[in-house]
Amino acid sequence: MTVAALEHVRIVLVEPQHPGNIGAAARAMKTMGLERLVLVAPQRFPHADATTRASGAAQLLSEAVVVDRLDEAIRDCGLVIGTSARARSLAWPLVDARAAATQAFASSAPVAMVFGRERSGLRNDELDRCHLHLSIPVNPDFPSLNLAAAVQVVCYEMRMAAGWAPPPQSHEPAASAAELEGMIDHLRELAQASGFLDPARPRRLMRRFRRLFGRCQLEAAEVRMLRGLFTALDPRRR
Amino acid sequence: MTVAALEHVRIVLVEPQHPGNIGAAARAMKTMGLERLVLVAPQRFPHADATTRASGAAQLLSEAVVVDRLDEAIRDCGLVIGTSARARSLAWPLVDARAAATQAFASSAPVAMVFGRERSGLRNDELDRCHLHLSIPVNPDFPSLNLAAAVQVVCYEMRMAAGWAPPPQSHEPAASAAELEGMIDHLRELAQASGFLDPARPRRLMRRFRRLFGRCQLEAAEVRMLRGLFTALDPRRR
Repeated sequence: MTVAALEHVRIVLVEPQHPGNIGAAARAMKTMGLERLVLVAPQRFPHADATTRASGAAQLLSEAVVVDRLDEAIRDCGLVIGTSARARSLAWPLVDARAAATQAFASSAPVAMVFGRERSGLRNDELDRCHLHLSIPVNPDFPSLNLAAAVQVVCYEMRMAAGWAPPPQSHEPAASAAELEGMIDHLRELAQASGFLDPARPRRLMRRFRRLFGRCQLEAAEVRMLRGLFTALDPRRR
Repeated sequence: MTVAALEHVRIVLVEPQHPGNIGAAARAMKTMGLERLVLVAPQRFPHADATTRASGAAQLLSEAVVVDRLDEAIRDCGLVIGTSARARSLAWPLVDARAAATQAFASSAPVAMVFGRERSGLRNDELDRCHLHLSIPVNPDFPSLNLAAAVQVVCYEMRMAAGWAPPPQSHEPAASAAELEGMIDHLRELAQASGFLDPARPRRLMRRFRRLFGRCQLEAAEVRMLRGLFTALDPRRR
């Protein structure tokens, strides 16, 4: 399933050298809901290593478009974003993966996200074909981001940009302020009855409990559970 | 170079099955400036496949800490975040990678980001040790995110957080995982002694307490305060 909101985005790999990286990139794409892969002059493709590393994303490989030149891969695109690890003499509009994904998602025209060769990246004449340059923040002492890892990060940001709805949080009803107050009162009585809280020298004990439980965003059921424990522990019951 | 702002964050891989994935995870970490790797009972390590896939990140492998159990990997951590692909019956605080990275970056205590086995992820008893559960958004029809790819996404978000988020706030010292475990043990004993917890019919009581207190990010002083209260309430003292 392609995420419908991302159907207009294709991933373009320029002259990938290792078939395994093509497969791993396909897997990375599919996990994030992107399915349009274009390969520009791959050295070896199709290849068993690609299929193996694609895991369950083999169909995406079989549907990949193979072309000879970058121009053919991006011809119909209204936005072309090229990945670049290098500083360029002529400063190009440079965005990070998040900003690139936001722009790509918002585009009404087809979008190409273009990745270069494993060792040498995109050539200058290829980067010149791109409207934006994308740089993934890397450790300057070890900027050795694997091709499929770069595709993974960009596709992840695409999926985040597409408005992935976070998984539903707990639907347990939250405790009301009154329920929380009742529990704090109960706790105060218990702490006094046990001798833990001396009313003559209360220090800041109850305030610290308030701070703690206020921070916890207790659910109503948790307040009932805690009060059940308090009741079981009440020394006056014995 | 570890990014100084991320020195307190470790990546924990629980029982990784394929040495190649350990190496690829190490490479993913280092490209984003994280260097602390902990392996819990890896099936095969050290291994040539790990070294090969680590590319230039071999030093990170040689400095990896290998332990037998998850508890040893997280003992001193004030924030433990576990990756989870599955819905759980009892809803745990669930965050996406971006929110998790923001919290991890802001933590003044050591942080563990815990990843499960390639095929089966983390077990429930392991997820119970985590304060937050992290879910990376994936294609529901192909949720087959490779272990190293998941590490890549999380480390990328850590690096983004380190670049974007405000400097860590000064907090009271957080309770370590070991201190939290000690408190949970204390609470269990107390709940049993009071009759609130019936060992023959425990229901999910202790799990609910774990969920509550895990969510609260308790401070060390709060754990001491709660244990003081527990001691004062212990029916066996009377």
